[in-house]
Amino acid sequence: MSSMMKAAVFVAAGRVEIAEKPIPDVGPNDALIRITTTTICGTDVHILKGEYPVAPGLTIGHEPVGIIEKLGSAVSGYQEGQRVIAGAICPNFNSYAAQDGVASQDGSYLIASGKCGCHGYKATAGWRFGNLIDGTQAEYVLVPDAQANLSPIPDGLTDEQVLMCPDIMSTGFKGAENANIRIGDTVVVFAQGPIGLCATAGARLLGATTIIAVDGNDHRLGISRLMGADITLNFTQCDVVDEVMKLTGGRGADSAIEALGTQQTFASALRVLKPGGTLSSLGVYSSDLTIPLGAFAAGLGDHKINTALCPGGKERMRRLMGVIASGRVDLGPLVTHQYALDDIEAAYDLFAHQRDGVLKIAIRP
Amino acid sequence: MSSMMKAAVFVAAGRVEIAEKPIPDVGPNDALIRITTTTICGTDVHILKGEYPVAPGLTIGHEPVGIIEKLGSAVSGYQEGQRVIAGAICPNFNSYAAQDGVASQDGSYLIASGKCGCHGYKATAGWRFGNLIDGTQAEYVLVPDAQANLSPIPDGLTDEQVLMCPDIMSTGFKGAENANIRIGDTVVVFAQGPIGLCATAGARLLGATTIIAVDGNDHRLGISRLMGADITLNFTQCDVVDEVMKLTGGRGADSAIEALGTQQTFASALRVLKPGGTLSSLGVYSSDLTIPLGAFAAGLGDHKINTALCPGGKERMRRLMGVIASGRVDLGPLVTHQYALDDIEAAYDLFAHQRDGVLKIAIRP
Amino acid sequence: MSSMMKAAVFVAAGRVEIAEKPIPDVGPNDALIRITTTTICGTDVHILKGEYPVAPGLTIGHEPVGIIEKLGSAVSGYQEGQRVIAGAICPNFNSYAAQDGVASQDGSYLIASGKCGCHGYKATAGWRFGNLIDGTQAEYVLVPDAQANLSPIPDGLTDEQVLMCPDIMSTGFKGAENANIRIGDTVVVFAQGPIGLCATAGARLLGATTIIAVDGNDHRLGISRLMGADITLNFTQCDVVDEVMKLTGGRGADSAIEALGTQQTFASALRVLKPGGTLSSLGVYSSDLTIPLGAFAAGLGDHKINTALCPGGKERMRRLMGVIASGRVDLGPLVTHQYALDDIEAAYDLFAHQRDGVLKIAIRP
Amino acid sequence: MSSMMKAAVFVAAGRVEIAEKPIPDVGPNDALIRITTTTICGTDVHILKGEYPVAPGLTIGHEPVGIIEKLGSAVSGYQEGQRVIAGAICPNFNSYAAQDGVASQDGSYLIASGKCGCHGYKATAGWRFGNLIDGTQAEYVLVPDAQANLSPIPDGLTDEQVLMCPDIMSTGFKGAENANIRIGDTVVVFAQGPIGLCATAGARLLGATTIIAVDGNDHRLGISRLMGADITLNFTQCDVVDEVMKLTGGRGADSAIEALGTQQTFASALRVLKPGGTLSSLGVYSSDLTIPLGAFAAGLGDHKINTALCPGGKERMRRLMGVIASGRVDLGPLVTHQYALDDIEAAYDLFAHQRDGVLKIAIRP
Repeated sequence: MSSMMKAAVFVAAGRVEIAEKPIPDVGPNDALIRITTTTICGTDVHILKGEYPVAPGLTIGHEPVGIIEKLGSAVSGYQEGQRVIAGAICPNFNSYAAQDGVASQDGSYLIASGKCGCHGYKATAGWRFGNLIDGTQAEYVLVPDAQANLSPIPDGLTDEQVLMCPDIMSTGFKGAENANIRIGDTVVVFAQGPIGLCATAGARLLGATTIIAVDGNDHRLGISRLMGADITLNFTQCDVVDEVMKLTGGRGADSAIEALGTQQTFASALRVLKPGGTLSSLGVYSSDLTIPLGAFAAGLGDHKINTALCPGGKERMRRLMGVIASGRVDLGPLVTHQYALDDIEAAYDLFAHQRDGVLKIAIRP
Repeated sequence: MSSMMKAAVFVAAGRVEIAEKPIPDVGPNDALIRITTTTICGTDVHILKGEYPVAPGLTIGHEPVGIIEKLGSAVSGYQEGQRVIAGAICPNFNSYAAQDGVASQDGSYLIASGKCGCHGYKATAGWRFGNLIDGTQAEYVLVPDAQANLSPIPDGLTDEQVLMCPDIMSTGFKGAENANIRIGDTVVVFAQGPIGLCATAGARLLGATTIIAVDGNDHRLGISRLMGADITLNFTQCDVVDEVMKLTGGRGADSAIEALGTQQTFASALRVLKPGGTLSSLGVYSSDLTIPLGAFAAGLGDHKINTALCPGGKERMRRLMGVIASGRVDLGPLVTHQYALDDIEAAYDLFAHQRDGVLKIAIRP
Repeated sequence: MSSMMKAAVFVAAGRVEIAEKPIPDVGPNDALIRITTTTICGTDVHILKGEYPVAPGLTIGHEPVGIIEKLGSAVSGYQEGQRVIAGAICPNFNSYAAQDGVASQDGSYLIASGKCGCHGYKATAGWRFGNLIDGTQAEYVLVPDAQANLSPIPDGLTDEQVLMCPDIMSTGFKGAENANIRIGDTVVVFAQGPIGLCATAGARLLGATTIIAVDGNDHRLGISRLMGADITLNFTQCDVVDEVMKLTGGRGADSAIEALGTQQTFASALRVLKPGGTLSSLGVYSSDLTIPLGAFAAGLGDHKINTALCPGGKERMRRLMGVIASGRVDLGPLVTHQYALDDIEAAYDLFAHQRDGVLKIAIRP
Repeated sequence: MSSMMKAAVFVAAGRVEIAEKPIPDVGPNDALIRITTTTICGTDVHILKGEYPVAPGLTIGHEPVGIIEKLGSAVSGYQEGQRVIAGAICPNFNSYAAQDGVASQDGSYLIASGKCGCHGYKATAGWRFGNLIDGTQAEYVLVPDAQANLSPIPDGLTDEQVLMCPDIMSTGFKGAENANIRIGDTVVVFAQGPIGLCATAGARLLGATTIIAVDGNDHRLGISRLMGADITLNFTQCDVVDEVMKLTGGRGADSAIEALGTQQTFASALRVLKPGGTLSSLGVYSSDLTIPLGAFAAGLGDHKINTALCPGGKERMRRLMGVIASGRVDLGPLVTHQYALDDIEAAYDLFAHQRDGVLKIAIRP
């Protein structure tokens, strides 16, 4: 094994390039994974564009599927050569935050020397790959807290079948889990990109029986039906709030899931709700949000607004892969393209411009 | 018994007057209550000022303490002459909304003839007294759905001791209940008017061990200590967000309760939260709200925002009166003034101008 | 309309007969329903055999599908002639119990004159039809608290399609709802009679991805696959606890649902659980139960045991009929036989002896 | 520092003796703690008597208060010399069980080589000190997974003040947390030993307003009033079930907490419940349990039975010490005696025979 590897690194705004980097050393609680498949996320495009700041030279990407190359001395219960995934969010489960129920919000070992004495949670700090540490768009990635984060791939599942588990599926499903869905509910899912499609699939799994998928792209709305939507609304062709009120006999939806990150979808998600309904927000917003007074019933509507960062950890990954293995959900239609790691710049170009019906791209070193 | 009674009616913006009205007839599911004590709420001041529209001629007020004068033919389990209260929100517990868990959001029997077929919940429509039907600032009030809403006053409790139960205590406690408080939590309560003071008392009852009360009035902050606050912050004298971060070692608060209804308190409540924290909102807002992007972690902070309308019903009232009877909470300090119903215009004047350290006024016909 | 009707009444242990009874008068909160379809439940067989005591002369049966013949004067939002169902459990939603979250446990208006003053909940007292008041195996039934309990049948659904909603489906689904199911869970359902089959369907709706159905009858196990079971175990041919441990890699099941009411199924349900798992019990037991010490981890296993009585009310019925209308679940295979009301004695004979693969029988006046 | 230390080891049934043992080596994720105070638990007495099997030669005890002597190479955020505690249950938070919400049920790194591939949770395997590994009744103890389990003692708190946090307080409070307590509830706590007393304090913290403590010892009942009980019942002088029914007007208790581990207390806890009530069980049972059919409403009472093993982890300990620091609860009255480690055999004798009003004994090396 050479001591060097190829990796896609952020160079400057507008530039992600393949570079040579040393294969990292393995500490006692780490694992070195040889990447067999990874993918590009919308967040990576924000990084590429310079909209989300990361250190120049950082390897980006946060969705690892691969093979254990080397285990840290204190990691047990795994074998080198085993096929594994890890979550996009790779939490330190020994942290106060994790024990307090919000593992994704803490990378406390990184800030343990801080003035505040290590109690403080840093929002989104559980997201480490391609953000705080080198990521997965490379030949190898070092997984921290490997005992907590490595999850063996069940026999019979391909890389592509589990490629959505680390991020898209975990996030989309969390959107459904955060929506307080009960059997027989009406749920409206705003935006049917990869995360919205997974939210639709998650709402179906949780017993919603009227799932209304909203997007401006009929092709995506077609896929949303495969994922479990009962009704699709193209917002360029109808007034979504009016339609939901008609479809529910004036009652409003029990829940709405926002999966885009815009003021418009956020406000519409609130407007379709019944009093007492839940808005589950998944989007990454880029400016202050406005809550419309009327839709909010001036604060008296018994509404709930829940946000989430993608959950990680080996148990989460085990469950999600179990869902795939059960055949309940087939995320195959989401992987629309294939590229070699060497060609990742072209893949970024395709993905950033959303050409050719792209949803997700499998990247293989 | 005369067939006429005195009542405080809304005449026009700026005018609430004592008028003579017929004592109402009692339908099969109603009860006629002779009011012995009621009070004025901030909402009534909004009505007085014409900021919240009600029909001219409507009797206002929504906090009934009194004696059963007459029971509807289908109401059982009560006796005429019994001392009772009913909630400010007097829900129809037979409604879809109530069976769906949000009783306060429905007055469905009033809208049953609507086009939508009676499924639709109307936000806040469970609030009927002094809003949709004649209220409690009168010699008599008709309680609808009496079987669900009349709650006998335990022996030994005075009118004044239970006067906060119908609204202020139920609302403030709901703010605490909605805050996901666990033993050992840090909770910040923004504004220490009557509802905020009850939220403080509720947070204490639920096991928060660091309760930080915020207001601009030192007198109210003094009372908040009686209600259970551990620390008080006068926002005119410190930066509240900074102080909370210092007090929690950089961790942030587990929960924040907003009890005023302004943009500033709402934003501050979000800013003091830890990632994963809960904002429980009680305020009645008067314009669109802005969610600051940073405090919201761009939507990725695992935050929860919960709103509520005051819960009603005889079981809720039974519990709240039980809390008073237990001695765990003494809301005596909240009733600062006494007026006769005939003098209610003066009472409104005092209350609207918040003179003389007024918190709540007992009104007696 | 004649003033008399036919009804199946309990005469004495072993005797249920068709008798003539007066059509009941309609009080202000009642509704008279003309039954178009009803069915026989296992509980009715216990009544027939004298194992569950009811008053001689009582009309039995508790699953009403029919048409509103006459509405009480205080009931609004419905029309005479409308097709409706009501739950087998027909709660008084104005009761303390209902407002306290356990509507099925209270028929308080019936015991309001009791010594305890009307606060006490009576276990199972929400079950009124064919238990405390005349039931549904008749030409007409009087529905109490009609405003809370009548639920209109959506257009396009047949009597047979909604016949399971009042009891079997509501109970079986509650068993799944009580099992704390999360996406990706393994759930074992013990016994695949009508309620167990509905529990299987409910577990599927809630996101369990490994559903293991257990019964001794291969025909029923075949139907359980239609309802959503992934794996079936015939307990006469294998050791169920061993099999579940093998199927879960030694982990144990996340939840187990007991749907029979015997010591053996209860103990097995506990034995298949992982530490931290939930036993959701639906069975009606006929003697004291034993909790085996080892399976219970001596009380230290973080186990949960939840029991339930069938939930009722118009909102519950609305949701369940919505599930049927969505096509997510087809309970058609459960209605195996058809009888006229006049032939109900033969139907009881068939059902009590479980002949001819009977699951549920549609009874039509 | 010598390489040897004194430790109380289990020799054989009936014999716990002070022995010399090597001070353990410190692995990368461990911490060596110099014990300054520990205590004896009822479980230790079971071990002493040979009723609970541990390996001969094992150091027993599981309640550590001490000073960090040496940190493992991979443990950060602490300083040697810092005062800390760790939970009696010292979980591996990287385990599947912990990520699945039941940290106390897994010591998976110990069983990682098992055939089942490390997915299986072992009930109570999170309890390691004095059970699976050397315990705390010694001069030094090695804390595994130190990053997750060490919790710094806040300035100003003495050893004695935090001595109950690792086990008794965490367990008793969990009993209250598992009881589904809402503001205004009636809670009955069966047995007022140290754990029951902490359950009483926990119920008080969570908003129960009628707390009924049951024991046969008037001295303990006196202390239960200090912990928050409103009413005490000596079961040798009254029929507890009858009394609770009288005190609640026939309604029954909302919750009951079992804190002894006998058939009688378990059955009584079920009998005092309202339909829909929760039995929170803390006791360690020594034989199969019987659920009485009537109290269980034949399985139809919407009852819940929850069990628990003491929660551990640094966040739990942080919260509990915060409760002590807040002054909300003073567990001082529970520490009734003081012994040197050298005299621990005498301490066991006193504690095992419950002489001299002993509740808990502080043991100091």
